[in-house]
Amino acid sequence: MTVPQYSVDVDEVEIDDEFWSPWIRRNRTETIEYQYEQLEESGSLENFRRVIDGKEGGFSGMWFQDSDAYKWIEAASYELAKADDPDLRERVDEVIDLVARAQRDDGYVNTYFQLVEPDKRWTNLNMLHELYCGGHLIEAAVAHYRATGDRTLLDVGIGFADHVDDVFGDEIDGVPGHEEIELALIKLYRVTGEERYLDRATYFVDRRGHDDRLAWEFEHLDEVAGHEYNDGDGAAEGAKVVFLDDDGEYDGRYAQDHAPVREQDTVEGHSVRAMYLFAAVTDLVEETGDEELWAAMERLWENMTKKRMYVTGGIGPAHEHEGFTEDYDLPNETAYAETCAAIGSIFWNQRLLDRTGEAKYADLIERTLYNGFLAGVGLDGKRFFYVNPLASSGDHHRKGWFTCACCPPNAARLFASLGQYLYSKRDGELYVDQFVGSRLDTTVDGVDVTVEQSSSLPWDPEATLEIDADGRVPVNVRIPEWATDATIEIDGDEVDVDGDGFVRLDREWDGETVAVTLDRETELVAAHPAVEDDAGRVAVERAPLVYAAEAVDNDRPLHQYAVPTGADAEATHDPSLLEGVTTLEMDATVPDLDGWEGSLYRSASETGSEAADLTLVPYYAWDNRDAGDMQVWHRSDLP
Amino acid sequence: MTVPQYSVDVDEVEIDDEFWSPWIRRNRTETIEYQYEQLEESGSLENFRRVIDGKEGGFSGMWFQDSDAYKWIEAASYELAKADDPDLRERVDEVIDLVARAQRDDGYVNTYFQLVEPDKRWTNLNMLHELYCGGHLIEAAVAHYRATGDRTLLDVGIGFADHVDDVFGDEIDGVPGHEEIELALIKLYRVTGEERYLDRATYFVDRRGHDDRLAWEFEHLDEVAGHEYNDGDGAAEGAKVVFLDDDGEYDGRYAQDHAPVREQDTVEGHSVRAMYLFAAVTDLVEETGDEELWAAMERLWENMTKKRMYVTGGIGPAHEHEGFTEDYDLPNETAYAETCAAIGSIFWNQRLLDRTGEAKYADLIERTLYNGFLAGVGLDGKRFFYVNPLASSGDHHRKGWFTCACCPPNAARLFASLGQYLYSKRDGELYVDQFVGSRLDTTVDGVDVTVEQSSSLPWDPEATLEIDADGRVPVNVRIPEWATDATIEIDGDEVDVDGDGFVRLDREWDGETVAVTLDRETELVAAHPAVEDDAGRVAVERAPLVYAAEAVDNDRPLHQYAVPTGADAEATHDPSLLEGVTTLEMDATVPDLDGWEGSLYRSASETGSEAADLTLVPYYAWDNRDAGDMQVWHRSDLP
Repeated sequence: MTVPQYSVDVDEVEIDDEFWSPWIRRNRTETIEYQYEQLEESGSLENFRRVIDGKEGGFSGMWFQDSDAYKWIEAASYELAKADDPDLRERVDEVIDLVARAQRDDGYVNTYFQLVEPDKRWTNLNMLHELYCGGHLIEAAVAHYRATGDRTLLDVGIGFADHVDDVFGDEIDGVPGHEEIELALIKLYRVTGEERYLDRATYFVDRRGHDDRLAWEFEHLDEVAGHEYNDGDGAAEGAKVVFLDDDGEYDGRYAQDHAPVREQDTVEGHSVRAMYLFAAVTDLVEETGDEELWAAMERLWENMTKKRMYVTGGIGPAHEHEGFTEDYDLPNETAYAETCAAIGSIFWNQRLLDRTGEAKYADLIERTLYNGFLAGVGLDGKRFFYVNPLASSGDHHRKGWFTCACCPPNAARLFASLGQYLYSKRDGELYVDQFVGSRLDTTVDGVDVTVEQSSSLPWDPEATLEIDADGRVPVNVRIPEWATDATIEIDGDEVDVDGDGFVRLDREWDGETVAVTLDRETELVAAHPAVEDDAGRVAVERAPLVYAAEAVDNDRPLHQYAVPTGADAEATHDPSLLEGVTTLEMDATVPDLDGWEGSLYRSASETGSEAADLTLVPYYAWDNRDAGDMQVWHRSDLP
Repeated sequence: MTVPQYSVDVDEVEIDDEFWSPWIRRNRTETIEYQYEQLEESGSLENFRRVIDGKEGGFSGMWFQDSDAYKWIEAASYELAKADDPDLRERVDEVIDLVARAQRDDGYVNTYFQLVEPDKRWTNLNMLHELYCGGHLIEAAVAHYRATGDRTLLDVGIGFADHVDDVFGDEIDGVPGHEEIELALIKLYRVTGEERYLDRATYFVDRRGHDDRLAWEFEHLDEVAGHEYNDGDGAAEGAKVVFLDDDGEYDGRYAQDHAPVREQDTVEGHSVRAMYLFAAVTDLVEETGDEELWAAMERLWENMTKKRMYVTGGIGPAHEHEGFTEDYDLPNETAYAETCAAIGSIFWNQRLLDRTGEAKYADLIERTLYNGFLAGVGLDGKRFFYVNPLASSGDHHRKGWFTCACCPPNAARLFASLGQYLYSKRDGELYVDQFVGSRLDTTVDGVDVTVEQSSSLPWDPEATLEIDADGRVPVNVRIPEWATDATIEIDGDEVDVDGDGFVRLDREWDGETVAVTLDRETELVAAHPAVEDDAGRVAVERAPLVYAAEAVDNDRPLHQYAVPTGADAEATHDPSLLEGVTTLEMDATVPDLDGWEGSLYRSASETGSEAADLTLVPYYAWDNRDAGDMQVWHRSDLP
């Protein structure tokens, strides 16, 4: 079989884009390198060596530390898939060698348990993340095998998956607290053709919400693995915050365990977990055609995107449980909106897009890529946001790495595999999902197709596609929802474009140039009236970018600016600013300070205003200069 | 001597007012009675009994628990001053008897130290509050002596003051962390004529900001009293928050110890402490004419009222140290604005008014009484706010009593002595400071004067004063700053009124009726543009009341209402609502919900609005019905 993660594989796309290439380059030269150093620094590799050497104890890091190594292998493997790099390959092989040698004969591998609690394997599915680490092992194994053809890590992953398949179902009936194994098993099924892995993924999806095992574990923390961790440092108290409801009862929502997935109506709990689960469920639907699960996916997507998502595509407002709360609860300054959750949303939406070919999923991927995700990474490629607020008092800054270092490696694997998200194929047709300069070499139903794309996004909404194919292949070009108008010309001949969504160009291709010109306006958007923090406010978009105001660019404190709904914007591209950005100068008003001398409160009718410009930069670029206030939502004259 | 606390004494004024009398009655029948029960419940009286019985340990409550008994005696004494009540008098005498018997021969009394750390007296001036308790003892002693003529408690207070005077200065050179002794010693000076008390108060005021003793104590917590408290339960960590600056250095601001008082420019630190200090300093200026200290008072009042005060008169935004932060830092939902700080502000401003006769101080007292203070007490007289936010998500409610029960007893003594704040005298003239129905019997420079006042405030801005005097006495009637116009008629003859401030009526009085009619408008006020939380917002005042919106009165979530600056208001008095209040219906707009179905974000230009009424009730009355959102500052169309 060897079906890729998405319908276009990472090695079929070569990105060469003015905007994205520098990010991908920094990811390769800075992030992936730094991430490798961290494997040694953090003791992650040493954990494997201690297992190999038969030692006990001495475990370093969080109990899911192994996943750092797996995520690095996965990211590095995508790089190797795109271009060989002997030095990188050698280091990957060394790490794989450690993992392979640490694996037990029965297929189990998890250095926390092997070193610290060998007798308590599979006793704390909720919090100890054995299946989560195993899932990342399998994702890395599949990526490495597909990149190199080398089966070493794939065999480790298969060994682990077989072990899981042996143990779960009969001996142990339960699901993991943190989803990840589900989508990994489906990837493994797709690369091996072994149906047991698909069945086991189905089991994990279907058992969720039926099972009282997670509740039982939480109520018996002293009997399950991780007791010292759970009781030792207040983490048990923290766990109670996320696992207990207001009445002190176990609340499955944190781990999407509150109801069977097929019955869920609202996105709940830890948002990364939810995204990984829904990604797996969408894969399952693709494999099984389960209409009930598909209906759940559609309901949950509607709930997330229409009631529980930031304008940046960020999700999960609450710090307390890193996740979703209630409809329309979208505070700006205290937003959590974890970078990993944005990445997870991209994973899910790409699967939804692959299954349906509906442009709305590609629209959301674009919004999330350019905003909620990209803000998570500093322009130096070395500093990261875990948390992505939409307003700041100037004390929120990217940090070099995290104790719980999930976001940087997740960003690394997304950058390294970005090509997968640009095109898709279904039913014998090709889809151009994102406008990113790139070369695609693929086959569509046996027909070889190449696309040479150049794009001026996000600064100018223009792209060209030079398409070649050795047979007739319909090519569908996405007109984004933000385009107010669009023109497509094939070698100068205009094509009918009706609204947004995909425009189908059904013809033979022999190097024709498809020129796509999109109209867009700097748009002031309002949030649903139920969103308290955005009441009376506007956000400014110059699609695909959401813009933000930073103190460093503006004379007055940001809260003093009001941007009326009819405000004009002046766009200026500055190649020297923030690695090259287009800034916006918005017509705004600020309070007249005359007359306030010596007053703290005055009759509102006596106050005045004056004109001012509010300078905005793309949201993704904030916090790369002097610290200060930031805001995405500006006061306006909205009712 | 026996000079009262203010220039008019509590027993010279009998309040009979439609608005205030029910509050004062509830204070007498509910609060003071409940407060008495708490003295037994909390172990406060038992602490005294244990000392009397020569026991060790077994101390109950906070280490400043004695002050609860003293504050209750003070409040009860004001009641006894106004009208004898044998049952109350008997209970007061019993408590006084306990205090007197617990006092050591050297004059010292403090049951925490006597029971727990007898060898560590006066070692932790910063945090253990011996001088604070002693100050409340003296205030109670003076109030009781003035009410009853009984010297029992006065002699205890004198004994304590003499002991303090012996010990401080030479043997111990230091100031208390929590001011209170200073104003108490001046009261004692005024009732006894003993200049040593005035000198000792001067010492405590002048040593503040010069002394490194508080810093030393804080850095030697293990050597000073209260070690177990300080280290035992995380309180030391809490203390570090308030006493250490960002660099980990001792920061005197918390206790106004950062600079000599005469050099201070900004109100800093714990706001109750600051108010008690400034009250004492203003008393000192009155006694000594110290112009440098007076200049500091004027500077500090300007800073507080023009940059650091809520529109309710509440002060001290920060929970962390219960106090002031920076200019214009006035968050609404997280406001601290402690009830005791509002009371302390009234104490300070009444002294400023007494000294100057400037109406601005009476204006602020009025604002604070009706809003920042009064909100602290529930309509049942049994429940209290310690913290008075100007916005709530519905989870902030009055509570029955507090572990650190400073606010309810402080409210009790203010209600019980409210008459003191209605009139003042200086330079042979009488001042009518507040419009509250009452009878004043006093002498002004030897001339007997009576004033029978009736008032319709706060609901209608009218008052009449029937004045009798056995000689010529100028009577000054305050025209509040909120009056847009004012008419005064004496027995029907109009008097010239020019602007606000005091209008001087210089004549002989023989039962003439002075009719005061004030014009006022429902006013929308804006806050200084530097106040972030109020940006673009208005508060609604119908002087002297600040109004608030509560969810229970309004269909839409409060954040959806916008009140334009030109909004009309309809006032309706409802005698059955909240013990009788005038509500306001403000013209407002809310977002049109049509078109939002299925959208979370839309182009702002596509959104619409519709007219709506926003119902407001007086801020003081909030949280007396169903819980829900509350806000004082409403979105508006301000720039």
